[in-house]
Amino acid sequence: MIKITLPDGTIKEYSKGSTPMDIAKSISEGLARNVISAKFNDTIVETVTPLNDDGALTLYTWNDDEGKKAFWHSSSHIVAQALEELFPGAKLTIGPAIENGFYYDVDFGAQSVSEKDFPAIEKRALEIARGKHDFKMHPVSKAEALEKYRSQGNEFKVELIENLEDGTITFCDHDTFTDLCRGGHIPNTGIVKAIKILSVAGAYWRGDENKKQLTRVYGISFPKQKELTEYLQLLEEAKQRDHRKLGKELELFTFSQKVGQGLPLWLPKGAALRERLEDFLKKAQKKAGYEMVVTPHIGQKELYVTSGHYAKYGEDSFQPIHTPKEDEEFLLKPMNCPHHCEIYNSRPFSYRELPKRYAEFGTVYRYEQSGELHGLTRVRGFTQDDAHIFCTPDQLDEEFKKVIDLSLYVLGSLGFDNFKAQVSVRDLDNPDKYIGSVENWEKAENAIINAAKEKELDFIIESGEAAFYGPKLDFMVKDALGRNWQLGTIQVDYNLPERFDLTYKGSDNELHRPVMIHRAPFGSMERFIALLLEHTGGNFPLWLIPEQAVILPVSEKHEKYAEKVLNSLENNEIRALIDNRNETVGKKIREAEMGKTPFMLIVGESEEEHNTIAIRRHGGEDLGSISVKDFVDLVTKEINSTLKSF
Amino acid sequence: MIKITLPDGTIKEYSKGSTPMDIAKSISEGLARNVISAKFNDTIVETVTPLNDDGALTLYTWNDDEGKKAFWHSSSHIVAQALEELFPGAKLTIGPAIENGFYYDVDFGAQSVSEKDFPAIEKRALEIARGKHDFKMHPVSKAEALEKYRSQGNEFKVELIENLEDGTITFCDHDTFTDLCRGGHIPNTGIVKAIKILSVAGAYWRGDENKKQLTRVYGISFPKQKELTEYLQLLEEAKQRDHRKLGKELELFTFSQKVGQGLPLWLPKGAALRERLEDFLKKAQKKAGYEMVVTPHIGQKELYVTSGHYAKYGEDSFQPIHTPKEDEEFLLKPMNCPHHCEIYNSRPFSYRELPKRYAEFGTVYRYEQSGELHGLTRVRGFTQDDAHIFCTPDQLDEEFKKVIDLSLYVLGSLGFDNFKAQVSVRDLDNPDKYIGSVENWEKAENAIINAAKEKELDFIIESGEAAFYGPKLDFMVKDALGRNWQLGTIQVDYNLPERFDLTYKGSDNELHRPVMIHRAPFGSMERFIALLLEHTGGNFPLWLIPEQAVILPVSEKHEKYAEKVLNSLENNEIRALIDNRNETVGKKIREAEMGKTPFMLIVGESEEEHNTIAIRRHGGEDLGSISVKDFVDLVTKEINSTLKSF
Repeated sequence: MIKITLPDGTIKEYSKGSTPMDIAKSISEGLARNVISAKFNDTIVETVTPLNDDGALTLYTWNDDEGKKAFWHSSSHIVAQALEELFPGAKLTIGPAIENGFYYDVDFGAQSVSEKDFPAIEKRALEIARGKHDFKMHPVSKAEALEKYRSQGNEFKVELIENLEDGTITFCDHDTFTDLCRGGHIPNTGIVKAIKILSVAGAYWRGDENKKQLTRVYGISFPKQKELTEYLQLLEEAKQRDHRKLGKELELFTFSQKVGQGLPLWLPKGAALRERLEDFLKKAQKKAGYEMVVTPHIGQKELYVTSGHYAKYGEDSFQPIHTPKEDEEFLLKPMNCPHHCEIYNSRPFSYRELPKRYAEFGTVYRYEQSGELHGLTRVRGFTQDDAHIFCTPDQLDEEFKKVIDLSLYVLGSLGFDNFKAQVSVRDLDNPDKYIGSVENWEKAENAIINAAKEKELDFIIESGEAAFYGPKLDFMVKDALGRNWQLGTIQVDYNLPERFDLTYKGSDNELHRPVMIHRAPFGSMERFIALLLEHTGGNFPLWLIPEQAVILPVSEKHEKYAEKVLNSLENNEIRALIDNRNETVGKKIREAEMGKTPFMLIVGESEEEHNTIAIRRHGGEDLGSISVKDFVDLVTKEINSTLKSF
Repeated sequence: MIKITLPDGTIKEYSKGSTPMDIAKSISEGLARNVISAKFNDTIVETVTPLNDDGALTLYTWNDDEGKKAFWHSSSHIVAQALEELFPGAKLTIGPAIENGFYYDVDFGAQSVSEKDFPAIEKRALEIARGKHDFKMHPVSKAEALEKYRSQGNEFKVELIENLEDGTITFCDHDTFTDLCRGGHIPNTGIVKAIKILSVAGAYWRGDENKKQLTRVYGISFPKQKELTEYLQLLEEAKQRDHRKLGKELELFTFSQKVGQGLPLWLPKGAALRERLEDFLKKAQKKAGYEMVVTPHIGQKELYVTSGHYAKYGEDSFQPIHTPKEDEEFLLKPMNCPHHCEIYNSRPFSYRELPKRYAEFGTVYRYEQSGELHGLTRVRGFTQDDAHIFCTPDQLDEEFKKVIDLSLYVLGSLGFDNFKAQVSVRDLDNPDKYIGSVENWEKAENAIINAAKEKELDFIIESGEAAFYGPKLDFMVKDALGRNWQLGTIQVDYNLPERFDLTYKGSDNELHRPVMIHRAPFGSMERFIALLLEHTGGNFPLWLIPEQAVILPVSEKHEKYAEKVLNSLENNEIRALIDNRNETVGKKIREAEMGKTPFMLIVGESEEEHNTIAIRRHGGEDLGSISVKDFVDLVTKEINSTLKSF
């Protein structure tokens, strides 16, 4: 008999050689039906692997990440079989599960695979799946394994096997297919009910651009057809909401080959939107006691030697800027903190004057490889809504709470109500990794945890995730498509005050080190706007959207009245414009819908006569004809319902 | 007899050998008393130089720049004599007139001259002046001249003479003193009534740091003692108003050795002031149809190769930024125009959509040698209140007028009422120097001149001062101390639209080139704020000043009331603070005066009882006790009187 410890801590006895599936069945038939993968003592095993020792067992279903991983990895075997059959001579290499689905890298030789082949691949893969073939692992000697692939002329698998130790090599079979594999499969192919080939792309063998280019076939699979349908809808929706697409359509930003990749140019509507966001935060920050500062976008190399950034990131950053006549070196600033430290250092402070809260919409530059750039989410230049708070250790508690209040206000005003927080603290087993006294760390970690509790955040604590210079709290938001994004951060820093020799005079008349808090509720203006575009699909909150209303005169003779309406709206600070192009009202409405304009104000004979406007909401709702004043009230009320004052 | 043409065009006959002074006397005794220098056929002559040919003669008095030049150059001879007498063995080199006064570069050998020697030098120089010694020029052979200075061991004069041609060498004598000199003196030393030695500084012989360091003795002189007194007061006033001094006292900006020279860090009060200025201009620009854009602070080298800036300025600029992994080169942006051209180029335009007016508070970086940096007026990074207008050639006229309107509004709102404009046009003799068609140049020059006339500007036209790419108009303002500053500029550009291949579709359905206007009413935020500091001595217009009022509770028990007052003021958007330090009201008033706060609001027993505030204006005026509401009205009225809406 062996003793099996289950995740809830219960220990049960089973006869030696029992499989995870046997154990699942012993717990409940329902569980057994759903179990598709298992972990035994930190090793992923098959559901049919016989267990011969005491140990801890976790059973996974489709709802677990590990379950999905086994599901998708198994699906890649099925697709590989289909590919081998449909493209004779294709050489298989590797086929792992990824975050969403799986891929298989294949050398198709002289053949090529394109979108038009996808239906045939899907059809054959599904046929195989329906055969309910068990996945069966079996050990193979190194010589035998090499012989198999040498005879097929598959130099990739040969290379993989050459790097493995004899005695550890396993293959996995199902139906007529066999593949070199470490394991981690679902019980049988029949569990896979839906398979979709998503795309093909070039990929170098082992990611090395000097090696052969293979074809990477991406796919995804599900235990229910309905789930695939939903996933494809989500993909389509994400494509429609892609901020690069919307940014272009709504004329928010552009890129220029001449200016350079990853360096966004903000077009008038985008620049105005950005400014509204900045003004919104500035106003709240002013109330919260922040002071704005302005600092240059470069700094002498020495500044970053002092801060430690040069030693750490110098080689991978934009390289130093030299001057023509003098022996000077400057760096594009990758962050604003060293500049703010120098501002703090420009005069002495007494404890009575703290906290000092310096804020700046500071544009920073960080080198990213061109292949990694992506719209506004991965850029080479971006503007942080940055601030640095310099306070006494005793003020940390209060300051942290205030920063959380501000962050919650920002998230709430922008329609993010689904978020979590992560508190990153020290690894207590590695105290030497951290700068600053144990006492201060305890103070800071307690301050963060207490603040998170008091503010009723939904938060988790991650040990060992703190930076070497201090603990932190990050906000993660879930967007309208259920995707997670890391947003604003609040970090305690004991390092920079030390490196810049920052001081304040305490009540004891001695000099002390202030603590520094880095914080940015948006994170970066670029990334935040990208996220907001994808979250709202371009239907920004009314207070933020570029044009709140478009006035559509039914014919030319109503243009005068339209201008009168526009004038009233402008006097009430409503952003509107008149569409007096020579087009039908129907076409103008369709285009205003495309342009995400929240209100279409149609003015014709009747409206002019009764001094009203006929209101149509984005999406089609007809609000009837009302006076301009009533419309202003409607807009004001709607704005006030989302945009509370801080 | 010779024919002499006078500046008014009249031609008079004089006997050969007549001197300019003879001619002055023939015109009027009064003129003769004031004439101190003359120009004959484009050559500066002495007032006693005999004229032997027909020619044009201009007579100069102290009121002419050329008159001052002769006066100060002659004064340098007088001071040189005094130095030679007081510091035996001192070797004289050169002693020219400069913009304000003169200097003489002297090798004092082992001796040294410092401030404590100034009174003795001034005393002796004035004694010499009072001797009414005539300045007398006489020719000297090269051999004789070399012999004189060789015998004195003065290698500097020897070097100067060696480079002169025999037969052209002259000396000037007065009293016991003689000096190598080309001429340009006043009649006699007696005209100089006041002499002041201002400072001494090191200066390399011929400005070459590899040559010997000499002592430069700076001085100034006047025909009346009163004028010297006034000048010294002005100097003192300028010192008090030095923006570097005021910027520090008012906590507006600072510099950091670590960040780098010439890179200002804006402190909270300065950043807020800057933002108010920017908001002021943004508001006016919005009304004037400008759209804000945001562009990065770097651009690929290719961008500046396209614009032509790299070829022209590349070597003398901050050097290219390389990237670690890819073969890329970026430059810090020295101007915003190439980025704005790329924004224009991001989509096609029809003539109906023009003009497009893109504005940006764009921070640019230009390398200046460290020795040339000066406070905020000569920096390495600064923010331009930049905009680029893209219009059709036919719109140029109208657009230029609109830009002048905006510029006049800006100058007027900031208290500059003493300004001139300079219109820079082509050199018609060198048509090849310019890009763009003759037709377009004529159109543009006429547009500028007509606009300047129509807007009733006090302007001059300078031929040949236009840039190669287009004509321009510059504003020069005179500050409170009578000093001239070049401010905003409006430039027409035919070059960049060509280089960036900018187009619009005309009414003929063909593609045409737009014209571009560069304009910046402030010029740069840094330089403008420096100028405003020196012009106002820190007493900024009420709408702009950091703190409009400070509330001074007479004792601790009135602090509650002070807070009530502060609250009312804040609700009325008046920037105020409470000075509740444990100091006397007298000291607080003195410090508020130093801090340039326009209003001091004293609150004590009586004020609290009657719900009033006792108002003291900056400068000391007592406005008595009034209600907060009346004070708000007072402030509002005063602001509205300077800050009209555009």
